Amino acid sequence: MISVIKAIVMMRKLYVDYAATTPLDPKVFKAMKPYFTEMYGNASSIHSYGIEAKQAIAKSRKIVAELLTAEPEELIFTGSATEANNTALKGHAFKQGKEKASIAISSIEHDCVLNTAIWLEQQGYRVTTIPVDKYGLLKLEELKKALRKSVSLVSIIHANNEIGTIQPLKEIGNLCHEHNALFHTDAAQSFGKIPINVKKMNIDLMTINAHKIYGPKGVGALYVRKGVEIDPLLHGGGHEFGLRSSTENVPGIVGFAKAVELRKKEMGPEATRLRKLKNHLVKEILNIEDTYLNGHPKKNLPNIANFRFSYIEGESLLLLLDKEGIAASTGSACSSATGKPSHVLSALGIKPEELHGSLRLSLGKKNTQADIDYILNIIPKIVKRLRSISPIKKIKTWTSQHNQKI
Amino acid sequence: MISVIKAIVMMRKLYVDYAATTPLDPKVFKAMKPYFTEMYGNASSIHSYGIEAKQAIAKSRKIVAELLTAEPEELIFTGSATEANNTALKGHAFKQGKEKASIAISSIEHDCVLNTAIWLEQQGYRVTTIPVDKYGLLKLEELKKALRKSVSLVSIIHANNEIGTIQPLKEIGNLCHEHNALFHTDAAQSFGKIPINVKKMNIDLMTINAHKIYGPKGVGALYVRKGVEIDPLLHGGGHEFGLRSSTENVPGIVGFAKAVELRKKEMGPEATRLRKLKNHLVKEILNIEDTYLNGHPKKNLPNIANFRFSYIEGESLLLLLDKEGIAASTGSACSSATGKPSHVLSALGIKPEELHGSLRLSLGKKNTQADIDYILNIIPKIVKRLRSISPIKKIKTWTSQHNQKI
Repeated sequence: MISVIKAIVMMRKLYVDYAATTPLDPKVFKAMKPYFTEMYGNASSIHSYGIEAKQAIAKSRKIVAELLTAEPEELIFTGSATEANNTALKGHAFKQGKEKASIAISSIEHDCVLNTAIWLEQQGYRVTTIPVDKYGLLKLEELKKALRKSVSLVSIIHANNEIGTIQPLKEIGNLCHEHNALFHTDAAQSFGKIPINVKKMNIDLMTINAHKIYGPKGVGALYVRKGVEIDPLLHGGGHEFGLRSSTENVPGIVGFAKAVELRKKEMGPEATRLRKLKNHLVKEILNIEDTYLNGHPKKNLPNIANFRFSYIEGESLLLLLDKEGIAASTGSACSSATGKPSHVLSALGIKPEELHGSLRLSLGKKNTQADIDYILNIIPKIVKRLRSISPIKKIKTWTSQHNQKI
Repeated sequence: MISVIKAIVMMRKLYVDYAATTPLDPKVFKAMKPYFTEMYGNASSIHSYGIEAKQAIAKSRKIVAELLTAEPEELIFTGSATEANNTALKGHAFKQGKEKASIAISSIEHDCVLNTAIWLEQQGYRVTTIPVDKYGLLKLEELKKALRKSVSLVSIIHANNEIGTIQPLKEIGNLCHEHNALFHTDAAQSFGKIPINVKKMNIDLMTINAHKIYGPKGVGALYVRKGVEIDPLLHGGGHEFGLRSSTENVPGIVGFAKAVELRKKEMGPEATRLRKLKNHLVKEILNIEDTYLNGHPKKNLPNIANFRFSYIEGESLLLLLDKEGIAASTGSACSSATGKPSHVLSALGIKPEELHGSLRLSLGKKNTQADIDYILNIIPKIVKRLRSISPIKKIKTWTSQHNQKI
């Protein structure tokens, strides 16, 4: 009995789904705490409680803006990256109207850009989709073609959330500006992981958030370059320079800033450490037969690795990994609940029958070499087991043997 | 020296701006805490961390829905009441289109309903404003007239945030349904203060939030009656039954539910206690010369009292009160930063020259009889002082004396 309890207690809990969300850094929690119960004022109130809250927001805005090389007044806090992306696209569309607005997105945008674009199209706005190559890199020639036909806003994800492929933002932004189009990028996954300079990268609008960088859930931000005009998505009391009304989530904003402050110091060394771990992981996993890497082998985030195992179902793989204490993902956490095949992997040209066999491992602060060793011990066994019961594998094997005999 | 320090330390800090926001209840903080650093999963992930988060949200949804007499699947969590109000109005407008949608609001809506309606009108949607009487009660005859001309959605604030006047929701809802219009109410200020039953009150859509009832900032909810169709305001991964995408703010939602759970027990006795304190406050303040109550004398929230002092500026009053440690408001915290005269007070028919002399005291959990006594000691002195230097008062006095002489 004791050994059973010991086994349960000892069971490793290994989180490798940092791209879905991250635990709050204890330092972030500490920074937020006083704003819940002591300094709880509404930042719009003109008494001392309000001033205290207002000052905390101003300080936070400065800290977050700095990491993007933006001015504080170019940053509006939102409730999430989803809200920031919706604000960028709809805010532009509503401001310009159906005559002038024409939006281009890549075929591998996050659901919140993709579904916003689909909705805008249903509302009568013009939307174009730019394809990517087999690694997920935007086809720049296709973007140029679209720009020549007149596009008012281009929205391209910086680093894709499923496969980690990083787009050449500077070049894309430059092309946009040459054709008088605005350039928006969804940097929810890359912000705080790799350097971003909105000025040098020719970015006009950029989405970021807190909960992917050890900050709180429920807080994001939209960078809006000075001079860029958008309609607010949330109308009301005129908060955030009139661009996003709502009583400010003061503890959330303070937490966001603390997370950013920590990233400033940790980002560089952490990227090096995680890339080393990931490279080892990728090398070893690719030794498994019929296994492939989804996404670009080099131009990618230091912490995301997306694998494709032929003949098996990603969901089964996930469930068995979870049993072994490994928390991973098949791709986007947002769409994993719907069970639909990933539009990102489809866009890479992966065959329909192989779309379901993917696994995303996304590393973070707490992961160590021992974790990677543990994963490398578990995954091959699970893949073998699943393939042994896979009906697809059996058919393939039979066909192959049959063909050999003939 | 010691006595100076003692005086500073002893200075009373008296918060009577609970309608702007409230401190987090320590029990709410305790409930939220584990979801920041331990149970930090993304509720859409299918591993154990995700399931844990998903279950916490489901449990929270049930608790919040219960207080409205709603089904859990009729409630979608949002990032704020502002977002919920924007979702209700825009979601209806976008779903119905410009041909079918026609929205009626009262003249005393919160900025986030008012400015949403103004924006929709600019976008080409039909919007009607229904006036109120001098107490802030909706003119039902005017509503009927508008409904006869065809209205698809009526949005009326339950209890006004500035003056506390409570509308007869059941009757309004009934009128709406008789004319096949949907009924939305912004209950951000009344929820958790007075009972609400969405079924009995004929409500189709209702906005609520957490930070006005000792819950966290950055969380709200929209009740959407089964069968009512709206477009989402935030498109993305399809969270919240497809009506509000965004990675769920798990600690925020858990905190919201805890706050609601506490209100279930505390709401009744607290309302009685606060009403008693308020009645005493109102009676005494009205003894000051040229002082009036804004809003309905009886049909109002137990905790909000809004006074109008002739000849003085509300802002000066607030600043002097703040110096004495009293944190109050001139009205809505949301618009206090802009300095514009209150559209709510204007709608009551208050003369332009008197619009700036208002003071809202909104009571809450920590306020005691001693606080009221302190306020009653301070306010008359400040009012007297301000009037003694008021140019308007001087002119009025001079005119009056002059007239007497003639």
